[in-house]
Amino acid sequence: MNIGFVGIGLMNGSLSLDLQRLYPNVVLQGISRKDATLNRAVELGLIHQKGTLDTLANADMVFVSIPVEAIAKLLPKILDNIGDNTLVMDFGSTKAAICEAVATHPKRNQFLAAHPIAGTEFSGPDAAIPNLYDGKTMMLCEAQQTRPDLLLHAENFLKKLNMVVRRMDPVAHDRHIAYVSHLSHITSFMLGKTVLEKEPDEQSIFDMAGSGFASTVRLAKSSPEMWMPIFIQNKHNVLETLNEYISNLNLFKEKLEAEAVEELLAEMKYINKIGTILEHK
Amino acid sequence: MNIGFVGIGLMNGSLSLDLQRLYPNVVLQGISRKDATLNRAVELGLIHQKGTLDTLANADMVFVSIPVEAIAKLLPKILDNIGDNTLVMDFGSTKAAICEAVATHPKRNQFLAAHPIAGTEFSGPDAAIPNLYDGKTMMLCEAQQTRPDLLLHAENFLKKLNMVVRRMDPVAHDRHIAYVSHLSHITSFMLGKTVLEKEPDEQSIFDMAGSGFASTVRLAKSSPEMWMPIFIQNKHNVLETLNEYISNLNLFKEKLEAEAVEELLAEMKYINKIGTILEHK
Repeated sequence: MNIGFVGIGLMNGSLSLDLQRLYPNVVLQGISRKDATLNRAVELGLIHQKGTLDTLANADMVFVSIPVEAIAKLLPKILDNIGDNTLVMDFGSTKAAICEAVATHPKRNQFLAAHPIAGTEFSGPDAAIPNLYDGKTMMLCEAQQTRPDLLLHAENFLKKLNMVVRRMDPVAHDRHIAYVSHLSHITSFMLGKTVLEKEPDEQSIFDMAGSGFASTVRLAKSSPEMWMPIFIQNKHNVLETLNEYISNLNLFKEKLEAEAVEELLAEMKYINKIGTILEHK
Repeated sequence: MNIGFVGIGLMNGSLSLDLQRLYPNVVLQGISRKDATLNRAVELGLIHQKGTLDTLANADMVFVSIPVEAIAKLLPKILDNIGDNTLVMDFGSTKAAICEAVATHPKRNQFLAAHPIAGTEFSGPDAAIPNLYDGKTMMLCEAQQTRPDLLLHAENFLKKLNMVVRRMDPVAHDRHIAYVSHLSHITSFMLGKTVLEKEPDEQSIFDMAGSGFASTVRLAKSSPEMWMPIFIQNKHNVLETLNEYISNLNLFKEKLEAEAVEELLAEMKYINKIGTILEHK
């Protein structure tokens, strides 16, 4: 089996580790904008050889894990170059613009739009870890537009990774994911900014920040190159979530100003419910 | 050694586990507003006997870990009842109002105002875990007002727990902690609220929420009874942090609306710095 990686950081790098475990004879080729990244991926054993758009013709499967605006731009060219039985999957965190970018491509049915609900706050080939996908959800969009044999192949592969597959319309995907992923990245970044601006004395952050703060601000370590394009591409939905979030903060502030203790208590008890919902994860 | 716990939940319960390891002959008595909590604490072996304000006279050390408004109210009465060599420490997340509440108490010098930078999002005696304090920071306020022999005793005890002691003025403590702890609890609660309101279909939260969301919203599981009084007692500082946070969110929103990609990138790169600062933790 020959696998092509477009981008070789956290997502494809981790996938490479799983692929090598599942298919000991797999041949892995990689493409990256940055030569340093490719060299590092070779060093780490994440790819066997550097590829080009042309060599992707030999790949059975191609995984595209690069910033979302680059996926939308590059995907048509990738499809131009693949073989007749190559399956291309992208791992972008947005789906509508990406599906649209290849909607009328003659090889549209060799593409499967995917979004793994998996990741860490780290990036680059050194961030690759084994079993990143184990037990996680894989969102598939417009799966009915993928050639049935290739879709079946993909689903078998995802089963081997022990992933749970969910299908969703790309527009609905982008609306939901804005709430449960994109918004929390922004709230984390802004929390980090607020503390950095007001606590120029780094020692006091270091001393007084507990595990709660570390957890809440964790996503503020995420790659700007990866996330800024997500916010832009999903701007319409992200702005809606931001408006609602800011409005909730303002309401909370008013209640706190008024010392409306019963209302604050009731609200916080209602929100505690999120714990029960997430418990199953 | 005889130890008195006022409140027997996550904080004092975890302390009990460490105390029993360090001092096998320790005698532990507990006071709680709720009888069910006391019974559960006995069942879990976190206390040996139920106490009263009167029996605290026999305690060598008393730890007060209850909601902060209750600490401010109860602390003078606790001091009224202790023996001549009893040391009382509170573990409240605010310090100014608590120090003020006992400022003129005749036994002020038997009190040490403390805030352990340790905890989890869970509460109650069942949340008690061993080694909660291991390697963590203990903030001490107005330590110079504590009787030197009792202070030395406390510091030796904290060393045994492997805690790092930092001294800070209570007003400065409350200002800093609003940024690195109180604010992040509010941002988490409001993130939880925004998602709960907009995603009435719980299944989609369940499917699409990844570890990033779980981490950012973790503090929204925290006890409202414990946290609402903290926000109220530290209202002045908390409102200031909220104003700055909301203002940063509005600025981000404007940049996103304008698709100011270079500015967004630069801002996010600057915020990434928080990772390096917290790395040492």
